[in-house]
Amino acid sequence: LGSGMFVYVRKLLQSMPAYDLALLLESSPAKSRMILWQLVDADDQGEVLEELSEEVRKGILKSIAPEELAEVTEGMDVDDLAEVLRTLPDSVYQEVLSSMDSQDRGRVEAALSYAEETAGGIMNTDTITIRPDVTVDVVLRYLRLKGELPESTDSFYVVDRHDRFIGAVTLATIVTTKPDVVVSTLIDSDIEAIAADMPDTDVAQLFERYDWLSAPVIDEQGHLLGRITVDDVIDIIREDAEHSMMSMAGLDDEADTFAPVVKSTKQRSVWLLVNLCTALFAVSVSSMFEDILGQLAILAVLNTLVPSMGGIAGNQTFTLVVRGIALGHIGDSNAKALFTKELSVGILNGVIWATLIAGIVTLWRQDIMLGAVIGFAMMVNMMCAAIAGVAVPLFLKKMKIDPALAGGVILMACTDVVGIFAFLGTATLLLG
Amino acid sequence: LGSGMFVYVRKLLQSMPAYDLALLLESSPAKSRMILWQLVDADDQGEVLEELSEEVRKGILKSIAPEELAEVTEGMDVDDLAEVLRTLPDSVYQEVLSSMDSQDRGRVEAALSYAEETAGGIMNTDTITIRPDVTVDVVLRYLRLKGELPESTDSFYVVDRHDRFIGAVTLATIVTTKPDVVVSTLIDSDIEAIAADMPDTDVAQLFERYDWLSAPVIDEQGHLLGRITVDDVIDIIREDAEHSMMSMAGLDDEADTFAPVVKSTKQRSVWLLVNLCTALFAVSVSSMFEDILGQLAILAVLNTLVPSMGGIAGNQTFTLVVRGIALGHIGDSNAKALFTKELSVGILNGVIWATLIAGIVTLWRQDIMLGAVIGFAMMVNMMCAAIAGVAVPLFLKKMKIDPALAGGVILMACTDVVGIFAFLGTATLLLG
Repeated sequence: LGSGMFVYVRKLLQSMPAYDLALLLESSPAKSRMILWQLVDADDQGEVLEELSEEVRKGILKSIAPEELAEVTEGMDVDDLAEVLRTLPDSVYQEVLSSMDSQDRGRVEAALSYAEETAGGIMNTDTITIRPDVTVDVVLRYLRLKGELPESTDSFYVVDRHDRFIGAVTLATIVTTKPDVVVSTLIDSDIEAIAADMPDTDVAQLFERYDWLSAPVIDEQGHLLGRITVDDVIDIIREDAEHSMMSMAGLDDEADTFAPVVKSTKQRSVWLLVNLCTALFAVSVSSMFEDILGQLAILAVLNTLVPSMGGIAGNQTFTLVVRGIALGHIGDSNAKALFTKELSVGILNGVIWATLIAGIVTLWRQDIMLGAVIGFAMMVNMMCAAIAGVAVPLFLKKMKIDPALAGGVILMACTDVVGIFAFLGTATLLLG
Repeated sequence: LGSGMFVYVRKLLQSMPAYDLALLLESSPAKSRMILWQLVDADDQGEVLEELSEEVRKGILKSIAPEELAEVTEGMDVDDLAEVLRTLPDSVYQEVLSSMDSQDRGRVEAALSYAEETAGGIMNTDTITIRPDVTVDVVLRYLRLKGELPESTDSFYVVDRHDRFIGAVTLATIVTTKPDVVVSTLIDSDIEAIAADMPDTDVAQLFERYDWLSAPVIDEQGHLLGRITVDDVIDIIREDAEHSMMSMAGLDDEADTFAPVVKSTKQRSVWLLVNLCTALFAVSVSSMFEDILGQLAILAVLNTLVPSMGGIAGNQTFTLVVRGIALGHIGDSNAKALFTKELSVGILNGVIWATLIAGIVTLWRQDIMLGAVIGFAMMVNMMCAAIAGVAVPLFLKKMKIDPALAGGVILMACTDVVGIFAFLGTATLLLG
C-alpha cells in the first residue's frame, strides 16, 4: 500500500465481500485505515459500516461530511442504520436524517425510539404480513407477485386489520400444505412474539432456547413492529461472551485493537489507577510489619508467594462463578451449595499446597518454624480465596454491578491483604 | 425437593422445555442432579442430553445402562447422538450401536467417521435433495406430499444422479418463482458447499460472514453428505468465545460448575502447580537481593508494587491481543504496527505511573532517591509488560500453542521477574 498502487488496491477491494473489508479495516493501523476507507467503493461503504465494531466505526464516521453520509447509508438495514446514527453527534445526526426521504426517515426514527440494547433497537421492519382468512394459494400467488423475500425470511406474520399480531406461519408450512387451506389454521404456536422493550440478551437466550431463525417484535398493544433475525442474535451472543473476558482486564469490549496511542492509554488508565489504590493498600499492610521484615530478610523474599497462589486459586473460582452467572446457572437457590463446594475445594487445595510449600521452604532454609508459618498462611489464604471467589461476584450481582468488571480487582485485594496479613502476622507471633 | 414431593416435581418437569431442563440440571449440585434426572420423562431425556454441556452429560451417562441408553437416544439428531456416543467408553458404545436399527446405525457411523470439531462432526443428514431438471411446480407437489420439512430448512440441494452436489436453491426462491421454471436456473451462487474436514471454527466464520441459515457439506469427490444449521453454529460461537476466558484462568471451558470436590481440585491443581513454579522463580530472584532487603525493610514493603502494576498493564495488552488473534484481526502483516503501538502505550503509561508512584513514595518516606528508584523500575516494567503482552501470544501462536491457555502465566512471570529485578537491582546500586 505504501508504494502507491492505488488503482490496483481499489480493484482488489471492489472484489471483496463487506465482511472481509470490515475485517481488513479493523486490522489496519489508524493511518492506513483512512486511506483504505477512501478506496472502498462508495456503494459498498454502507455495508462495510454495518460490519465494523463500534469504536472503529466512530473513528471513520468522524471523517465523513453529513451530506456524504446520507449517501453512504442509503440501502442499509434499518437496525444497522439506527446503530450508526446513534454514534453521531446531534448536529450531524439531524442533518443526515433531514437529507433522507420521508419513508426511510420514518422507519429510522421508529427504530431510534427504542433503546439500543432492546428488541426494538435490533429489529428490522421488513416483515411480510398476511391476513388470517386467506388461503395458502393466495399467499403463494402474492409471493410470486412480490418476486423477492427480505433476507432470512423463514416465516410470515398473521395480523388483523389493526396490524395486531395474531401468530406466525412458517414458510415450511406454506410449502407443505394444500393450496386450499386457510392460513389461520396453520399458525405455529412455538413462535412467540417478543416485546419491543425486552433486553437484547434475553432475546438471544430465547433464540438459543427454541432454535428460532427469526421472531416477531410487538409493542405494548400487540401491534407488529418488525422482526429480529438470527444473524443479529449471533452478534449479540459474540459480544456478550467477549464482554466478560474484556471486562476482567478492565477493557471496553468494543475496544479497537489499533486505537490511537493516547486514547488507548486513557482507556487503560482507569484500571491501573484502581489497581494502584489496592496495591498501595497491600503495601500499607506490609508496612505494619516493617520491624519483622527488617529482622528477617527471608520473610521479604517469601512475601509474594502466598498472595500469588491465593490470587490464582481465587481467580479460578471467580471465573467459574462469573461464567455460571452469565449462563444463568447460579442463582439464590443454589448459592449455598456452590459455596459449600468451593469452600471444600479451597480447603483441599489449602492442605495440598500448604504441605508442599511448607516442605519446600523447610528443606531450603532448614527451618521448620518458617515452613510451618508459610504453610499456615497458605492454608488460610486458599480458604479466603474460595470464599471471596464465590462471595464477591454474587454480592456485586446483588448490587447490580457487573461482576466481571469490578470483581477481579476486589478479589485480588482480598487475597493480597489476607495473604500478607496471615504470613507476616503469624511470623511476628512465632518468629519475632 | 428435599421434602420428597416427587410426583409434583415430576409433573413440573414434564411441562418444561428441554433447554430449561438442561439448565436446571446444570445448576444443581451432583446429588440433586441425579434425582432430578430420574424424574425427567423418558421421552424427553434424549433432548435434554443434547442440550447439556459435555462434562455434565458424561456424569449422567455413567449412570445409565447401555440398553436404556439406546432407548433414551432414540429420535435424537444424528450430530448430537454422535457427540453423545463419543463420550462413552468403548464397550458401552458398541452395545448402544448394536441395539439400534440398521438405518440409524449407518447414519451415526457415518457421522462418527469425521473428527468431532469438523464440519462432518457437526452436520445433520436430513437434507432435502432435488434434481436439476424438475420444475418449481414439481418441487412444490413433492413438498406437499412430504408434508413436513426437517427443522431449520431454508434451502434444498440440487444433486446429480450420483448424489454429487450441484448447487442450492433457497425456499424463498421456490415460493417467489413461477411454477413452470426449471430448478437448475434458480441455483443461488452465494451458497457454497463446505468440505467435511473443515474445522468447525472456520465453518462458524463462514456463517457469520455470509449470514447463512444452513449450508451443505460435501466429501472430497463432491458428494452431498448433509447440512449444517445455524443453531449448531451458535453453540460453536459461544463455546469459542468462552474458551479464551476459561483458558486464561486455567480452566476447561466445559467445566461443570457443580463438579464433585475432588474432581474440581484435580482440574485446578495443574494451573496452581505451574504458578507455584513461576512464583518460586520470582522468589529465587528476590533471594538474590536478600542483603539489601535486610538493610532496608522499606524495600521489602514496596517490593510488590512494581510487579503488580506491570502485571495489570501486561494483562490488558495480552487480553487485547488474544481477542485480536481469535477474531482474526492480528496476523504477520500488522504485527509490527501493533508492536509499535503497544510499546508507545507502554512508554506513555510508564511515564504517567512512574511519576505518580515516585511522587507518592518520595512524599511518604521523605526520600527522593527511593522515589527515583521505584519510578525507574516502574518505567522499565511498564515497557516490558507491553513488549511481553504482544510478543508472548504471537510467539505461542507461531508455536501452535493456545495463547489464552499458557500466555497469562508466562506473562506474569516476565513482569514479576523484571519488576523485582529492576526495583531491587537499582536499589542495590543506588541505595546499598
